[in-house]
Amino acid sequence: MSLTLDQLETPIPVVDLDRLARNLDRAASYTSKHGLALRPHIKTHKSPRIAAEQLRRGAVGLTCATPFEAEVMSAVSDDLLVAYPPVAARASRLAALPETVKLIVALDSPEAIESIAAAARAADRPVCVYIELDLGMHRVGVPRVEDAIELARLVLDRAPLEFEGIAFYPGHVRESVGEQSSKLEQLNAALRSSIEALDRAGVRPPVVSGGSTPTMWRSHELEGVTEIRPGTYVYNDRTTAAIGACEWDDCALTVLSTVVSTAVPGQAVVDAGTKALGREPMRGTDSADGFGCVLGHPEVVVKSMSEEHGMLDLSRSQWRPRVGDQVRIIPNHVCIVVHLNDVIAGVRGSEVETTWPVAARGRGFRLTPELAGSA
Amino acid sequence: MSLTLDQLETPIPVVDLDRLARNLDRAASYTSKHGLALRPHIKTHKSPRIAAEQLRRGAVGLTCATPFEAEVMSAVSDDLLVAYPPVAARASRLAALPETVKLIVALDSPEAIESIAAAARAADRPVCVYIELDLGMHRVGVPRVEDAIELARLVLDRAPLEFEGIAFYPGHVRESVGEQSSKLEQLNAALRSSIEALDRAGVRPPVVSGGSTPTMWRSHELEGVTEIRPGTYVYNDRTTAAIGACEWDDCALTVLSTVVSTAVPGQAVVDAGTKALGREPMRGTDSADGFGCVLGHPEVVVKSMSEEHGMLDLSRSQWRPRVGDQVRIIPNHVCIVVHLNDVIAGVRGSEVETTWPVAARGRGFRLTPELAGSA
Repeated sequence: MSLTLDQLETPIPVVDLDRLARNLDRAASYTSKHGLALRPHIKTHKSPRIAAEQLRRGAVGLTCATPFEAEVMSAVSDDLLVAYPPVAARASRLAALPETVKLIVALDSPEAIESIAAAARAADRPVCVYIELDLGMHRVGVPRVEDAIELARLVLDRAPLEFEGIAFYPGHVRESVGEQSSKLEQLNAALRSSIEALDRAGVRPPVVSGGSTPTMWRSHELEGVTEIRPGTYVYNDRTTAAIGACEWDDCALTVLSTVVSTAVPGQAVVDAGTKALGREPMRGTDSADGFGCVLGHPEVVVKSMSEEHGMLDLSRSQWRPRVGDQVRIIPNHVCIVVHLNDVIAGVRGSEVETTWPVAARGRGFRLTPELAGSA
Repeated sequence: MSLTLDQLETPIPVVDLDRLARNLDRAASYTSKHGLALRPHIKTHKSPRIAAEQLRRGAVGLTCATPFEAEVMSAVSDDLLVAYPPVAARASRLAALPETVKLIVALDSPEAIESIAAAARAADRPVCVYIELDLGMHRVGVPRVEDAIELARLVLDRAPLEFEGIAFYPGHVRESVGEQSSKLEQLNAALRSSIEALDRAGVRPPVVSGGSTPTMWRSHELEGVTEIRPGTYVYNDRTTAAIGACEWDDCALTVLSTVVSTAVPGQAVVDAGTKALGREPMRGTDSADGFGCVLGHPEVVVKSMSEEHGMLDLSRSQWRPRVGDQVRIIPNHVCIVVHLNDVIAGVRGSEVETTWPVAARGRGFRLTPELAGSA
């Protein structure tokens, strides 16, 4: 039995399997050429099936954000970085991962070190640690290298923890690829002086882990970086294409939707709203508005949304879709789209070849029988 | 066995059960006092358990947006409005609801009428129809009453469809409750002339269905309205409180989160980001920024977010949370929070009394065995 796109219920994210394979191949050959370890962030796809494709092409391991992502991914990889501070209940949940998994955590505080050290001791397992540095994004990470040195020493004093390296995330570098140079130079300078200071203090980091999709193809210009953790590159999205970190033809995921109303003049309403597409603005560019654009009609954007309604602005287009027509939307930020949906369809052309669940969606909280009432 | 809040894994939405009950009671007594039918929109909670509480207090039926919501809610109600155009695959899925369910759909096009008429005939069941009017929101709905008359006549000509009334959604009235008067007057005038025109044309609507949470407590001022469909009032949120449609103490749902980093000066990072809290701006007020505020510290807002990080701005506060501390966030838009999460915890004070799944989350798409690959 085979299905075609027009037989799918909407809204549903559809992935062009040929584009996906091309994106995976390109990243593998770039990192291989430059001797960089690729540890892709699975937050973008949350699927062991796609993680397995990344590993088959040479990824050294995987990056996760949540304990549930790590639990799901432990089925396909025995080398997992949880790039998130292991505090409170997270620590013991992570330490309970299968013993065969090499577990690395990234952290930036003494509290997080004590938390994961206690959990590692209780579970009697080694846990490797990256110290997170803030190199300009101002999200997490210690801003001063002196603090990083202190944390590295604390880790060395807390067996079975092991000091594995440093991590940073260049999430503040969102300019178009051509305009990134001055920010990357600043990043390079900060990185170089941090590594030198750590070295002088006797805690030279074996691994220097960085890298995002927007800066991906320039990762080899960053001195000292040994590993990168891009996520978005598997699917890409409107933001990635607009800043030039991929071509428009590399956008592998679109949200298939149906026109449900054309009653209000100048617009068409599709069934992909904030609950399917997410309310994510364009970043790193001033030249694009809206929350997504229509595949094949890039001049048409989703100008506004309700929870189950996306309003297409037809004012810049001659195209006039009719009620019942299907429309494919390139989302601004694909990671959010995946998180909002449960099922992905894999297509070649207009043929639906497969479907898969977003297996690591949600938190994997177990409803305790004592507390779980009826639905 | 009982749990306390500090034993919960985060991020997780927690509902104050006393506040929830009070919100449900208040809506029931308001609509009863004014002789309005209450048909609450379940998109806010997506839970049959809470829907049952609404029905027990006198709701005439439920409002849903998606076929899956209607399927889940058919377990607790036999009177369902799907306030969404029934086009394409939606029509046959809705017509397949249990025969014992009175099904009403809202629509605004001849295409939608033909679509649901064909599905109703194939399933051999009656389907009631509301004609959707655009009374100023400019989302869906016919802008001219002449078009509504034409659609009503088309419905009357398409047995087993039945013309049940008209629907509108005053989603454009978002001012604070005290400032709504001039917009409500305009709405009233448009409503009155529409009903009169329909009456003159021989298609007087038995039901006039409107109402949102922001305009809820003034619904009785709208002439001709027989039914209201508020959703948000069960939980309320920061937007509802800021415009005065509820008190701050009526906000029943907060997102319980944990401080995971304080490394960057002037901020604390919690584990509720866009994937738990949603990137929803405040609406209807210019006096509040950010994506949520901290319960007990309303001066502290979530100033920015990543997928799993919420950055609390501490610059207007003396409060300094520590890594590992729990924080409860009042979200800007509660409906999105519920959709992002799988499990809700019901609490009284700091005691966790129960948990329930967000049963109607997602789309309920069945993975066909032929297409479902491995995860």
